[in-house]
Amino acid sequence: MSNSLLLQFESEMTKILKDLKDIHHELLSSMMYSLEAGGKRIRPLLLLNTALALRGENNESDFVFACAIEMIHTYSLIHDDLPAMDDDDLRRNLPTNHIKYGEGIAILAGDGLLNTAMELLISQISNESTKKAALTIAKASGVSGMVSGQVYDVKTVKTKEQLLKMHQLKTAKLIESAIIAGAYLAKADEQLINKLKVFGEKLGIAFQISDDLLDVEGDESLIGKPVNSDEKNNKSTYISFYGLNHTKLLLQDTVKQALDSIDGLGLVYLETLAKFMLERKH
Amino acid sequence: MSNSLLLQFESEMTKILKDLKDIHHELLSSMMYSLEAGGKRIRPLLLLNTALALRGENNESDFVFACAIEMIHTYSLIHDDLPAMDDDDLRRNLPTNHIKYGEGIAILAGDGLLNTAMELLISQISNESTKKAALTIAKASGVSGMVSGQVYDVKTVKTKEQLLKMHQLKTAKLIESAIIAGAYLAKADEQLINKLKVFGEKLGIAFQISDDLLDVEGDESLIGKPVNSDEKNNKSTYISFYGLNHTKLLLQDTVKQALDSIDGLGLVYLETLAKFMLERKH
Repeated sequence: MSNSLLLQFESEMTKILKDLKDIHHELLSSMMYSLEAGGKRIRPLLLLNTALALRGENNESDFVFACAIEMIHTYSLIHDDLPAMDDDDLRRNLPTNHIKYGEGIAILAGDGLLNTAMELLISQISNESTKKAALTIAKASGVSGMVSGQVYDVKTVKTKEQLLKMHQLKTAKLIESAIIAGAYLAKADEQLINKLKVFGEKLGIAFQISDDLLDVEGDESLIGKPVNSDEKNNKSTYISFYGLNHTKLLLQDTVKQALDSIDGLGLVYLETLAKFMLERKH
Repeated sequence: MSNSLLLQFESEMTKILKDLKDIHHELLSSMMYSLEAGGKRIRPLLLLNTALALRGENNESDFVFACAIEMIHTYSLIHDDLPAMDDDDLRRNLPTNHIKYGEGIAILAGDGLLNTAMELLISQISNESTKKAALTIAKASGVSGMVSGQVYDVKTVKTKEQLLKMHQLKTAKLIESAIIAGAYLAKADEQLINKLKVFGEKLGIAFQISDDLLDVEGDESLIGKPVNSDEKNNKSTYISFYGLNHTKLLLQDTVKQALDSIDGLGLVYLETLAKFMLERKH
């Protein structure tokens, strides 16, 4: 859980952005605005720390994969915030991308981030492990994952089953893919991959439940956007389906299942992050 | 230039769409609506015919690459038509995607098509040739290509140099990439690749010039959208910069440069398509 990994990630991402050729200056500015808006970098850190734990060190390629997954996450936030989706004006205490740059550029910044992420993934493929890692991330962000999850969100969720499906697709798949990609890069065997898949899905769901709780009980200045926005936007959440107390029990149970799935493997970063879901403030 | 290649392409694309797992039914419907709206399939046919001419046959992987590039082209049309971009209601004689499905789903259908295209490209990488082909297409559609070209369009073009830059990035790069990817798949040498790059860029520019001419002189029922839309939308075109007659001369000259670049190579399909730019009706 070293801070130096985060610093190294930020520096690698800056280098990658500087290397983009022929890009329109306003597009680059808009992409960087959202990339550098102070996210927690959970997905890249999951990938880097998983590879580090299993291989004993990180290599250059790990960082390129980590940048790709953060770009995908950032693109999804830009598009989710658009007027035709959640219509949010504020994220991480800053105006959202379309408020700052206009809707047209915001849509293109999202497209550009997704495309650049895929270019980075393709550029890193040199054997079966790197190909599996790239395909794991690409599938998680696509129509079998995040994009379909967002459609559930746009079309309104009506049942507990739809709520779980939405969060599995929209949030958990990409988080899970960060861990699995890190494991593939470190050439983990399929038995370990399967355990990490269970962990990743549970962690992703716990992350979403804690997000719903923060929207009700969080501190606006810490989470960087207005509280109670889900209720205001008529969004179905764990709390609207289960009530506050039951949702907290559900979170504890989900974190426990996550921890059980990697018990005894000595994956300290993953354990710490799962426990952190119980005490998130932002 | 056989019609059977087109039929085989359509059937392969239907198969690929059927194989998509866990996709939200409305997302699939929206993606298929635009994919099956009767495009000319110029990019996939360029890829398939280039590989066919150089290798003597097409293989299964050629068709997957061809589907990927058509998905990228289709996604770009969906996003370009959005109210925040060109705000077009009609394309190919049908309501545009956001008119039919709403803006939120249309944005996600575009995202989904781009992501699926990249999954297809990644899935086909098995050696240096397939990797080069995938990276060529991915770079052409991204921030060093099509996405930056669209930013020029959104921000308004003020000079002839910007007009050329916009069309090189927005239109020519992806068309060029179809040819180059087909050539890489057929393991063409770098000398041939360089000739085809010149051809592809000239063909792409010729395609855009003929598009501008169709907007002024075309038949609405054939081109599937209102004529004079560029003037109505205050778009800079070859005609607004050069006038009608000079634009026609420019088209002839560009087609000639394209043909010269592949003279004597016996690439009949490419030659025919370049000449077709002089007599496009849709």
